[in-house]
Amino acid sequence: MEKVVHYTKVENELVEIEGAREIYVRWLITDKDGAPNFAMRLFEIKPGGNSPYHEHPYEHEIFILDGDGKVIIDGREYTVSQGFAIYIPPNVKHTIINNGKNDLKFLCMIPLTTKRK
Amino acid sequence: MEKVVHYTKVENELVEIEGAREIYVRWLITDKDGAPNFAMRLFEIKPGGNSPYHEHPYEHEIFILDGDGKVIIDGREYTVSQGFAIYIPPNVKHTIINNGKNDLKFLCMIPLTTKRK
Repeated sequence: MEKVVHYTKVENELVEIEGAREIYVRWLITDKDGAPNFAMRLFEIKPGGNSPYHEHPYEHEIFILDGDGKVIIDGREYTVSQGFAIYIPPNVKHTIINNGKNDLKFLCMIPLTTKRK
Repeated sequence: MEKVVHYTKVENELVEIEGAREIYVRWLITDKDGAPNFAMRLFEIKPGGNSPYHEHPYEHEIFILDGDGKVIIDGREYTVSQGFAIYIPPNVKHTIINNGKNDLKFLCMIPLTTKRK
């Protein structure tokens, strides 16, 4: 069955993993919706917050919706804002930092658990 | 290797499949970038345009970036605008119609060809 939902109607959860600061996630489309291959999440990082500088064995595909930030991937820094697409390969260390004045909002897609390599 | 790109820097191609009207696509992240599981595309439908009312054996995960539109999924109609997430399962007939005054922009993720079921 299809799903059509405004992101604000999806629960906003604090990300509590180590190294995460002031970052929230909404799981918009997941395997619970029947999605067979990958999940869509919407993140909001508050000003001064960041995702952990970590790595894992699956990729990220990210699209910046709003705000200003800095992405560090394997030591390389990129300035990003609305309209940037970011591909982070598996097993590469990365973080996203909100160095702007407003919330940094972005979509981040990942393969579903059973498909993670 | 990572990829960090503003969507406007990616080639905008007219979608020429049957039934598509005034719709353009930018392939933001694909297997050519090393993506192992799924691709990210950004579509723009001009006012009055639409995607074909068709079905195929793979899913869509869509996020509306801008504009106003109507989505029809297996005969059911939904009004969508900025901030809507849409999951369309495999093998379900669907179309997106721009019934607004501005361009309708959205991301549409699909599994990569070799992963399509």
